[in-house]
Amino acid sequence: MTPIVFRDVDVLTGEEPSVLRGATVVVDEGRIRRVDPPGGGENAWPPGARVISGRGRALLPGAVNLHNHAAMTLFRGFADDMSLMPWLTTRIWPAEARLTPEDVYWGALLCMAEMLRAGTTAFVDMYLFEDEVAEAAVQAGMRAVLSPGIVDTDGRGPERLAQAVDFVRRWQGREGGRIQAMLGPHAPYTCSPGFLREVGEAARELDCGIHIHLHETEGEVEEYVARHGRRPIPALAELGLFERPVVAAHCVHVDEEDLAVLAAMKGGVAHNPVSNLKLGSGVAPVEAMLARGVRVGLGTDGPTSTNDVSVFLEMRVASWLAKVRARDGAALPARRSFELGTRGGADVLGWADAGRIRPGAWADVVLVRLCAPRFEPLLDLHSAVVYTLADADVEMVLVGGQVVLEGGRPTRIDEEKARAEVRARARRLVEGL
Amino acid sequence: MTPIVFRDVDVLTGEEPSVLRGATVVVDEGRIRRVDPPGGGENAWPPGARVISGRGRALLPGAVNLHNHAAMTLFRGFADDMSLMPWLTTRIWPAEARLTPEDVYWGALLCMAEMLRAGTTAFVDMYLFEDEVAEAAVQAGMRAVLSPGIVDTDGRGPERLAQAVDFVRRWQGREGGRIQAMLGPHAPYTCSPGFLREVGEAARELDCGIHIHLHETEGEVEEYVARHGRRPIPALAELGLFERPVVAAHCVHVDEEDLAVLAAMKGGVAHNPVSNLKLGSGVAPVEAMLARGVRVGLGTDGPTSTNDVSVFLEMRVASWLAKVRARDGAALPARRSFELGTRGGADVLGWADAGRIRPGAWADVVLVRLCAPRFEPLLDLHSAVVYTLADADVEMVLVGGQVVLEGGRPTRIDEEKARAEVRARARRLVEGL
Repeated sequence: MTPIVFRDVDVLTGEEPSVLRGATVVVDEGRIRRVDPPGGGENAWPPGARVISGRGRALLPGAVNLHNHAAMTLFRGFADDMSLMPWLTTRIWPAEARLTPEDVYWGALLCMAEMLRAGTTAFVDMYLFEDEVAEAAVQAGMRAVLSPGIVDTDGRGPERLAQAVDFVRRWQGREGGRIQAMLGPHAPYTCSPGFLREVGEAARELDCGIHIHLHETEGEVEEYVARHGRRPIPALAELGLFERPVVAAHCVHVDEEDLAVLAAMKGGVAHNPVSNLKLGSGVAPVEAMLARGVRVGLGTDGPTSTNDVSVFLEMRVASWLAKVRARDGAALPARRSFELGTRGGADVLGWADAGRIRPGAWADVVLVRLCAPRFEPLLDLHSAVVYTLADADVEMVLVGGQVVLEGGRPTRIDEEKARAEVRARARRLVEGL
Repeated sequence: MTPIVFRDVDVLTGEEPSVLRGATVVVDEGRIRRVDPPGGGENAWPPGARVISGRGRALLPGAVNLHNHAAMTLFRGFADDMSLMPWLTTRIWPAEARLTPEDVYWGALLCMAEMLRAGTTAFVDMYLFEDEVAEAAVQAGMRAVLSPGIVDTDGRGPERLAQAVDFVRRWQGREGGRIQAMLGPHAPYTCSPGFLREVGEAARELDCGIHIHLHETEGEVEEYVARHGRRPIPALAELGLFERPVVAAHCVHVDEEDLAVLAAMKGGVAHNPVSNLKLGSGVAPVEAMLARGVRVGLGTDGPTSTNDVSVFLEMRVASWLAKVRARDGAALPARRSFELGTRGGADVLGWADAGRIRPGAWADVVLVRLCAPRFEPLLDLHSAVVYTLADADVEMVLVGGQVVLEGGRPTRIDEEKARAEVRARARRLVEGL
């Protein structure tokens, strides 16, 4: 891999100090090697380095998308503006029953093109045919944490768990650690307590994490309480499901006991503000989570519920929602939501080397151009990035030091082919529904 | 003006039927002259017409931005993430006290570049030095409804009203009707009841509309009730302020009586969902307004509170907020919020010839390209436009048949100059604050 030097670039580090003006950032062998002040360090550039001017630009840690169902690009726009239950029963489930592994490959690959264009370097996924998502991630060059979705509604849970265990064994740590794997029990309402206990045991044996939907809607929490006499989050903790790191997607409806459990567990919460709005689920109490020490990162949820798959958009919406929830424009400032979408997600995954720009960190970085009129007068970089940045502003993306997007285009994805495949396959999948 | 023919283009009409596939749209002498089905009407194209292929594209009515303070680009990013009162008293007001007319010209012109890039063809504005905003709108080629902001907190209300009356007389109907003028009493908490009665009388004499902030925050309504014994909206109706068409910005906190007054008045509500989130004001009950027959359009509010000045973004957020408010993903579908941002705004302004694509309407239209991965598989055009469209997708904008944006760039604005002016002037305005 050619070493890369970003020269004369404003850096949002994702940690303290938060902004470095006109810095030089040296990338070599997959990692950030140096971060030098203006004019410094030229003697220490690696030989043969490609030097990129950062004038009018900013270098950011890549965004971490903590919750996605990437292949659901296939159904984007097919079932918008519906209530949750008809959405699932009359549209999504019947269409998903038609899915082939090849459909999932192309759907996921297209979503990766979209994520890279929007400045996302890593994502956490749960879906069917997850091997195909893994193959697509290998191709795209993205960092990925993948979990085959497991449900236990038809007695076939143990069979699915065995397949998922096999998936984790096959994929964990592949591509020099760029591909990771988790177990993905879908939710407390699709997996029985006994089955979840088995999943927890399997995760401990595999030494892997768990990716699960929790407390997305008020109704699912109420139903669980009616059936089991207590709320899902503390119940799952008692089942031993949280002894390995968890990515807990949504957590919109949580009470003080839930928050205490979330704060004590390994891993953390994937906050999906856009999906929670668009499906009418509610507004998660992010500031309360942070105040109690819960680790929080941002996710987009699947393209069918979020449509525009961008963690930077989620940052913006996270700040907006915290403000309206608190009735105070000072809540969750741009800098804080930027950190949630970068370092916050990395911390949920236990990645001390991601989500920040500093010597030694993985070279998962994004170069953005801040020259559109909507950025002017560019008085605050965090505000610009959170409240204004769009995918058209993303010029270059590196994952592990490798250039995976350049000139706004993914370098390892044939976008025309992926677009055509998804367009044709989607029409077959939804036909007559 | 050269006639223009958009050929083989999908059209979102803004009315019934809502989608025309592969249509031909003929623009001549400032208006849409024909809308023909695929293959039809070629004999009727005007001689010398420029023919534009609409393949992979869609033609939309231009968005109508019902509420803006365009020149506040000058303060974008200067005072984000603050509570309302410190925001106003320690940041915005001291900075505004330094404004010159030239500052306002450049700030407003830059905002027009941004609005055109985002597919907005018309806007309603309220600010200081509004003559400069008018000059900028003449230059940019946008359709504009302009109101000098009037307050009466210092006894100088009558003087400001006289100046505003003079403004309306000078600007009403200029540029072949492209520039219109209204009186702009700022709000019930900055204008006394007696003064508002005078404003209403002046509006009737001038036969012009009124642009005012109403019920933006809960606190301002409560204070008004404490002082005057009733809520502002019915109080203002009794003062005769609503006998001319009104653009009522915000209306976040409204009760049944308020809604009845709004439904009965001429004009309607400018819903500003992004600003209402970002300043922590609340979520306006848009579906309740529509159910009671209130006319509703969308506005961005000023660039200092909304940051990214795009009516298409407001459409997206309007749908999201209606859904989370109703706890139902089926609330305010994409097609409905698209109509609010186009025809809805036009109807509030009494413009039967704007916000829709049909023969006879003004040729205020936007050509967008739907080829980014985030649009695939493009199963629903309204979903694509509302939940995915970004300014990078806007290729061409016409106002009154004139090409004011082409190749994504405004044709009549020197953007480099405007960016440099705003950048330098903003730094002078905020220095030391």
